[in-house]
Amino acid sequence: MKAAVLHEAGGIPRYEDFPDPVAGDGEVIIDVKAVAVENVDRAIAAGTHYASEKYTGRFPAIPAFDGIGALPDGTLVGFGNIRLPYGALAEKTVVPQGSYMPIPDGIDPAVVSVMASAVTAMSMKTAAGFVPGETVLVQGATGVAGRLAVKVARLLGAGRIVATGRDDDQLREVQAIGADTVINTAVSDEALAQAYLDAKGDGYDVVVDYLWGRPSEILLRALVPRSFAFGKPTRVVQIGESADTEIALAGSSLRTSGVEIYGAAKGLDPQTMDEAYQQIVTWKRSGELTFDVEKVPLSDIETAWQRTDLKGRRLVVMP
Amino acid sequence: MKAAVLHEAGGIPRYEDFPDPVAGDGEVIIDVKAVAVENVDRAIAAGTHYASEKYTGRFPAIPAFDGIGALPDGTLVGFGNIRLPYGALAEKTVVPQGSYMPIPDGIDPAVVSVMASAVTAMSMKTAAGFVPGETVLVQGATGVAGRLAVKVARLLGAGRIVATGRDDDQLREVQAIGADTVINTAVSDEALAQAYLDAKGDGYDVVVDYLWGRPSEILLRALVPRSFAFGKPTRVVQIGESADTEIALAGSSLRTSGVEIYGAAKGLDPQTMDEAYQQIVTWKRSGELTFDVEKVPLSDIETAWQRTDLKGRRLVVMP
Repeated sequence: MKAAVLHEAGGIPRYEDFPDPVAGDGEVIIDVKAVAVENVDRAIAAGTHYASEKYTGRFPAIPAFDGIGALPDGTLVGFGNIRLPYGALAEKTVVPQGSYMPIPDGIDPAVVSVMASAVTAMSMKTAAGFVPGETVLVQGATGVAGRLAVKVARLLGAGRIVATGRDDDQLREVQAIGADTVINTAVSDEALAQAYLDAKGDGYDVVVDYLWGRPSEILLRALVPRSFAFGKPTRVVQIGESADTEIALAGSSLRTSGVEIYGAAKGLDPQTMDEAYQQIVTWKRSGELTFDVEKVPLSDIETAWQRTDLKGRRLVVMP
Repeated sequence: MKAAVLHEAGGIPRYEDFPDPVAGDGEVIIDVKAVAVENVDRAIAAGTHYASEKYTGRFPAIPAFDGIGALPDGTLVGFGNIRLPYGALAEKTVVPQGSYMPIPDGIDPAVVSVMASAVTAMSMKTAAGFVPGETVLVQGATGVAGRLAVKVARLLGAGRIVATGRDDDQLREVQAIGADTVINTAVSDEALAQAYLDAKGDGYDVVVDYLWGRPSEILLRALVPRSFAFGKPTRVVQIGESADTEIALAGSSLRTSGVEIYGAAKGLDPQTMDEAYQQIVTWKRSGELTFDVEKVPLSDIETAWQRTDLKGRRLVVMP
């Protein structure tokens, strides 16, 4: 079969022949239809992600750990839990029986492959307990996931949405899809800290953070109070690290500020996750939530993997 | 009157004459009886704390923002909300009417002045929602506040208590007062990470953190999972910064680890705070909770302020 093959950590996957997977006991072969390529896939392939060892611990390896495909009987499913070295970026892959779920009828598999990002954006509710009327700050709103977070915040009934990015043109697009206030983070530290304070109104209730690094470091420092208080909660959900993998976090940023920090997986169990997914499907069917995808054939993986012109659109590989 | 007078940020308070405070409209003069000197007082006096500007924004200033004293009618009270430059470390201070609460009968004012540290240790419950049977990690257990946290964890019904420090002799004392397992943090980064993992059992449910800095950085890195998962919650309460004011915090330390981080003030309102205080008073009266204090006269403030031999005992100044 043809596959996107990675020969070393940090390499570029190449379109090559690769032995067909053979199903062992309790396994099933998946005929892959659509695979969304996300930052996390690139980080795993680069060897910089904490799950890198699990998914690309030896080479050659096929990247991407989930996707949309067909079972041998033709049923379309979302699959995961792939068996090394068979990642999703191939004509076929192999997973344990049951490591898949039927996908919603009548939705393009390419779009279904992108829905996970919207489910992650739902962590503003599942992890941070967002309630309608609250103010949401989307750190990194010009990316695919960040734009979905702005849309999801609007659909969940946010009172006010503040969104950050580094490109004024893209920030205007983010305003067009629902942000009330935008902040360009490509300014001096002092100006950025002031911008966060100027835009905070009665306070940020929820921060969904796709950036980490410098902007989030400055944000958390800006929220330190100047005296003791019972701080109003600001619930920060860590999702991505487009800006950097780390921040310097002062104890004083937490002690009485009301800032709480946790990951997107907080509060998730299979039922909560399913409910979030069904909500996304409902919004997709009603047309309230839209997804921007850039479909490319598997044969283009080498160039597609390196594209930087997809602003706001998710790369979806169609084997 | 006599007072401990600070002439510059980062200086040592000196025992000097200072004009008596005069009560303005709606103010009352307090005859000071006992003042616990804590790390936070030193940080404010050093100008390194976020509340420094509020409490010692101009000089000369009298340090310490709360204490135990007598109202003009002789009633003993705990007071706060002092009016600059009149801090608590003086024979007299001045506060607004009502910025005080009666103290419990029959408890030494020096001990009452220390109870706030035990109330802060209650943040394992008020902030982190500790329930009996859970495992508590006390980061920095050999200090006054850390020892109180070990005792409070035991009294609250912790299933297991892990405690850290840098001195084996003091860690033995911490075991004697209730820790099940101790970790000496004065080892290599790798050895410390391994020690945290070895001691975690089914996982740390609550971490009360008086250290921050290197030990907490290594702890949080050690808790990063090696694959995706619905992480079991580890609720980290930031209280002190004896080791350092900052940590480098990786996004991956949060994303799916189950780690949640917040400050000791989370969940506090006046009622919750009063309930925590009453619990401490009850334990003190029954003898279940003991406090180790080192009383010194105000005239000794200059040497007392610089003492480093108080391991486990709280410095209490008696004007």
